[in-house]
Amino acid sequence: MADITQESANKMFGGWQKVFSHDSKELKCKMKFGVYIPPQAESGPVPIVYWLSGLTCTEQNFVTKAGAQQYAAKHGFLVVAPDTSPRGCNIEGEEDGWDFGTGAGFYVDATEEKWKLNYRMCSYVTKELPQIIAANFKVDSDKSAIMGHSMGGHGALICALKNPGQYKSVSAFAPICNPINCPWGVKAFTGYLGESNKEAWKEYDACELIKKYNGPPLEILVDQGKADNFLTQGQLLPDNLVSACAASGVPVVMRMQEDYDHSYFFMATFMEDHFNHHAKFLN
Amino acid sequence: MADITQESANKMFGGWQKVFSHDSKELKCKMKFGVYIPPQAESGPVPIVYWLSGLTCTEQNFVTKAGAQQYAAKHGFLVVAPDTSPRGCNIEGEEDGWDFGTGAGFYVDATEEKWKLNYRMCSYVTKELPQIIAANFKVDSDKSAIMGHSMGGHGALICALKNPGQYKSVSAFAPICNPINCPWGVKAFTGYLGESNKEAWKEYDACELIKKYNGPPLEILVDQGKADNFLTQGQLLPDNLVSACAASGVPVVMRMQEDYDHSYFFMATFMEDHFNHHAKFLN
Repeated sequence: MADITQESANKMFGGWQKVFSHDSKELKCKMKFGVYIPPQAESGPVPIVYWLSGLTCTEQNFVTKAGAQQYAAKHGFLVVAPDTSPRGCNIEGEEDGWDFGTGAGFYVDATEEKWKLNYRMCSYVTKELPQIIAANFKVDSDKSAIMGHSMGGHGALICALKNPGQYKSVSAFAPICNPINCPWGVKAFTGYLGESNKEAWKEYDACELIKKYNGPPLEILVDQGKADNFLTQGQLLPDNLVSACAASGVPVVMRMQEDYDHSYFFMATFMEDHFNHHAKFLN
Repeated sequence: MADITQESANKMFGGWQKVFSHDSKELKCKMKFGVYIPPQAESGPVPIVYWLSGLTCTEQNFVTKAGAQQYAAKHGFLVVAPDTSPRGCNIEGEEDGWDFGTGAGFYVDATEEKWKLNYRMCSYVTKELPQIIAANFKVDSDKSAIMGHSMGGHGALICALKNPGQYKSVSAFAPICNPINCPWGVKAFTGYLGESNKEAWKEYDACELIKKYNGPPLEILVDQGKADNFLTQGQLLPDNLVSACAASGVPVVMRMQEDYDHSYFFMATFMEDHFNHHAKFLN
């Protein structure tokens, strides 16, 4: 483990919840990520589930609130939870809003001058981090899945759709399904990718990427709370994902959950179902 | 619900995780408490489990990190999680330390002049709060259990031992078993009860209370991490509890858990076992 430093380690459900830091080559800054190592990893390589968090989160939110480790221990999955943006890059404006800059990397590789050196979360999550995981843990990288929440649900969907075959399965909680058509997405893509470059925007939009997806069959599971205030505000647009999947013949199970909101309370409730979903493809 | 105000409500595991505030008569200040209302409460009265938190905690720590709601939903228990001290009483010195004053009520009724008006957590938890719960929720108060962590594990033990029959069962994670013989306890009892009044101290010490307990049979479940730094520091003294129980014929299951620490990661791991323990006596 030459390139990563263990920051914390807590025994949990027979395995270990750890947090590591490292100097990211893609992001040019120090980053942290959480890793739950299931007890099964002691005896051989295990599948990997990547979790991408939402706006304002660090690696801690999922680690402390999602209640996922019990299911990871049951199925024998190593669970990797990265941070949501580069940190401390001292870019002017980086800390001005909670929905852009720090805590809001949106899982894109920025092309705008100001952001393009550091804000490369797409490459970080799909290339650098998998290499680090493969080099440091007893994993079977051919068995990887990806999931996430809100901005991270968007991230999970686009990572899976942009990299056919890299992830055996994908799921999301309340994802930003169609960022090019919602206020959060328009703000982020304008900032990171430029206002005029609308074709580049489509390369990070799940509804657009589904149109041209021609990789191995994907079966998408999404849970969406009906009492989610961001649903009402038009930030998430799950209907657009369902329509895009229908038009392209990609199977999606979109579960609209009565009374549930956008919180970790909602996610903890259905986390077991998502791990069972991934287990169908990983085990 | 004339006397309590709903501060938040999140659907979770088919029930509702809510937080309420109220003006406490015992503590003479505004207090918050968490309540998980299981789905079974819609159709009739349900048993109650009280959770007492440790030093520095508010009602939020348990609500967000313990992962207990899934087991409460399974068994049909209403779970009440109060705060750990009065708040905002403007007593000189109240905010000076993390192990005394705010966040550190130690579940005693203070007798020292400076603290005795507000710091009445024992009466708050065993009298005022049960009345509020009975008046506002569909519960069967005759079926109550109590559990807690660290300072709150101490609290759970003394509440059960001081009030024979009020709680059908009791359990604890890493409790302060013998506060009159550990630094945390000596500091707290000196402050709240007075340095000289050692007989009063014994009324809030589980190892002392067990000696004279003559209520209905109690079966105590305790989980203690072997890698708990407060164990090493002599704050918890589980051996003293085991000895006291043995001498008094009170059954205790003390499980020493290899590699586990003092954290919510530890508690989440064994939470299911504790709910199963309480279910034996509540259902």
